[in-house]
Amino acid sequence: MPASPIRKLVPFAEEAKRKGKKVIHLNIGQPDIKTPKVALDAVKNNDLEVLEYSRTEGSDTYRKKLSGYYAKNDIHIDAADIIVTTGGSEALSFAMGSIADHGDEIIIPEPFYANYNGFATAVGVNVVPVTSHIDNNFALPPIEEFEKLITPKTKAILICNPGNPTGYLYTEEEIKKLAAMAKKHDLFLVADEVYREFTYDGCEHHSILREEGLEAHAIMIDSVSKRYSMCGARIGCLVTRNKEVIQTALKFAQARLSPPTYAQIASEAALDTPQQYFDEVKKEYVGRRDLLIAELEKIDGVKIGRPQGAFYCIVELPIEDADHFAQWLLKEYSLDGETVMVAPAGGFYASPGLGKNQIRIAYVLEKESLKRAVKILKEALKSYKG
Amino acid sequence: MPASPIRKLVPFAEEAKRKGKKVIHLNIGQPDIKTPKVALDAVKNNDLEVLEYSRTEGSDTYRKKLSGYYAKNDIHIDAADIIVTTGGSEALSFAMGSIADHGDEIIIPEPFYANYNGFATAVGVNVVPVTSHIDNNFALPPIEEFEKLITPKTKAILICNPGNPTGYLYTEEEIKKLAAMAKKHDLFLVADEVYREFTYDGCEHHSILREEGLEAHAIMIDSVSKRYSMCGARIGCLVTRNKEVIQTALKFAQARLSPPTYAQIASEAALDTPQQYFDEVKKEYVGRRDLLIAELEKIDGVKIGRPQGAFYCIVELPIEDADHFAQWLLKEYSLDGETVMVAPAGGFYASPGLGKNQIRIAYVLEKESLKRAVKILKEALKSYKG
Ligand SMILES: Cc1ncc(COP(=O)(O)O)c(C=O)c1O
Ligand SMILES: Cc1ncc(COP(=O)(O)O)c(C=O)c1O
Repeated sequence: MPASPIRKLVPFAEEAKRKGKKVIHLNIGQPDIKTPKVALDAVKNNDLEVLEYSRTEGSDTYRKKLSGYYAKNDIHIDAADIIVTTGGSEALSFAMGSIADHGDEIIIPEPFYANYNGFATAVGVNVVPVTSHIDNNFALPPIEEFEKLITPKTKAILICNPGNPTGYLYTEEEIKKLAAMAKKHDLFLVADEVYREFTYDGCEHHSILREEGLEAHAIMIDSVSKRYSMCGARIGCLVTRNKEVIQTALKFAQARLSPPTYAQIASEAALDTPQQYFDEVKKEYVGRRDLLIAELEKIDGVKIGRPQGAFYCIVELPIEDADHFAQWLLKEYSLDGETVMVAPAGGFYASPGLGKNQIRIAYVLEKESLKRAVKILKEALKSYKG
Repeated sequence: MPASPIRKLVPFAEEAKRKGKKVIHLNIGQPDIKTPKVALDAVKNNDLEVLEYSRTEGSDTYRKKLSGYYAKNDIHIDAADIIVTTGGSEALSFAMGSIADHGDEIIIPEPFYANYNGFATAVGVNVVPVTSHIDNNFALPPIEEFEKLITPKTKAILICNPGNPTGYLYTEEEIKKLAAMAKKHDLFLVADEVYREFTYDGCEHHSILREEGLEAHAIMIDSVSKRYSMCGARIGCLVTRNKEVIQTALKFAQARLSPPTYAQIASEAALDTPQQYFDEVKKEYVGRRDLLIAELEKIDGVKIGRPQGAFYCIVELPIEDADHFAQWLLKEYSLDGETVMVAPAGGFYASPGLGKNQIRIAYVLEKESLKRAVKILKEALKSYKG
């Protein structure tokens, strides 16, 4: 199992804190946004007397209401097309396990969410990266780049839309190209859409489940973690109209019995979150992103992958080794007793050596902290000798 | 992925219910016992505003308090030896993934908890069964039987103590024999102790973690599901003093981020459940078991694996094919509009053909229902032509 790229830094961060340094975390995707009250209250007011297993595929009422949520997003699916999972994480595991055997391959545009490696390793699947580039904000690589990599062992293309760590939002045209390729080569197209709700600048999200004729190929991964800032619930889902995939994924689900009951109560109630909540959250993230980018642009030699979704961006720094820099920030540097923790981007690439001078920043902090963090980064770069 | 042996019957049970038949469920391990109030209240009274990810390895306060629970059970471990998981199910997955590679083997006394097959298949591990027998209540098979099966690919012995589906409680001597074998052949000894608290007739439970010199070999699986009748929480844990195993299991845990937060609140509070609760629960189960066995013994040609733990027993019936019989009970039979659903035991054996005339009964129902269920079984056997 590969270690997560951020985990390696944790001991240094802990050491820094022990020494009294303040550490601003730009490295994690744990939003500071409040969970909708309607979700929290539903759990507080529950009247269960026996905390029983739920149905393996998730409670009927939740799945039904969830299909209503998708309908509002122009995604028309049955409750039977949904398996409720323990986080989007488990949905990703089930998807990989269901569509690929040991030694099979899944093509993923890099940089990608590093835990894809973990899920793939656990089921013995090989990740084959196709590189996207900061110069066009990590847009979809040309389809030919994918096609060059397709072998008899290739079972699927996996995308993250909007992307972690890139913040890139695929256009409708890009989704259509991917869909055509999936059909042409008879591959699954798996889309991790856990950041669906986080799209900016008036851009619309295009779910793969809206593509006609893709019924047998499309598998969508979703999660309540970020949408409602309820990461600790551990509820996600796998959605597909492909009955065979549902049947296989159900066997994985049956082995682990059921998703958590309290969290399903919270997730079902969260579907009643007023639109105002999302409007405010979106506004907050756009404000943070704009501030972050404006501040970063003031630093010499910095290149930014401009995000239109999620709450991450990749930043290229005028340094050689972001791993070293990130450690140095924690171990050696401080500005008035403060430093920042960033995620070196190398861990988001599968191709060795790529992303070495890049970091990922998560803008899940209040504007004041973000501003301060970029200031520290700027000053640090001046002192850093590499 | 193998389908669970019980799942195959579910459509027939649903059909029977649709037709107005009452179905008494002897087939599932979902206790009807109330969850301790202290656990339910802790969740109702929580004051979280942001439902955040917890630590990957489980919250510090919970792990610390849990190590106190183990100390009371004469198991002395550090909080750092515990990884909190999403049910015992996830702990089993992590254990198998951490100690075996694709194609490796794990030896398990059969009949065993059928989902072990699912977890093994998911990580590409082969289950090698060693058969235990109803005639001695499914006691540990002779060590030579295990040793015959050990190959260079064998990584571990997995036991369930007390056993599902057998109800068998291993003696201290048997645990010592297993420990000696694990040491001699340098294998892991994994013990699924999720039914630890359910031991009867004054028998004591012997955890593998109490064996001296077994530190590097012993991995214990636990769960709050049955102990506190809170199956829907989805909290379990993996406990081992082997630091390397902890490190590897942590990588699996990191990929899926964290165990559920609400459920950890409930589980931590459940540790304050008064002893009286367990005394009452135990008394109830002993009463049910005694009644079940007394009633079953009245049926001609029936053989019973006498359980001293958990809440299951294997029953051998004067029939040829329990799969067929179980279906027939749902499809064709009724006594005054009622029938019973049993788990055919074939699915708990890995050796083809074994257990074909056996069923598993879970005594998680009130005595009146149990009595009625056995009555139906008795009458049904008279009508059944096979
Ligand atoms: C791209 C992506 N997919 C999936 C997940 C998994 O989230 P969860 O398991 O909390 O739903 C995350 C979490 O950060 C993520 O960033
Ligand atoms: C023997 C055994 N192990 C593990 C489990 C898993 O339980 P959970 O995932 O609810 O902790 C069960 C559940 O029935 C079981 O019977």
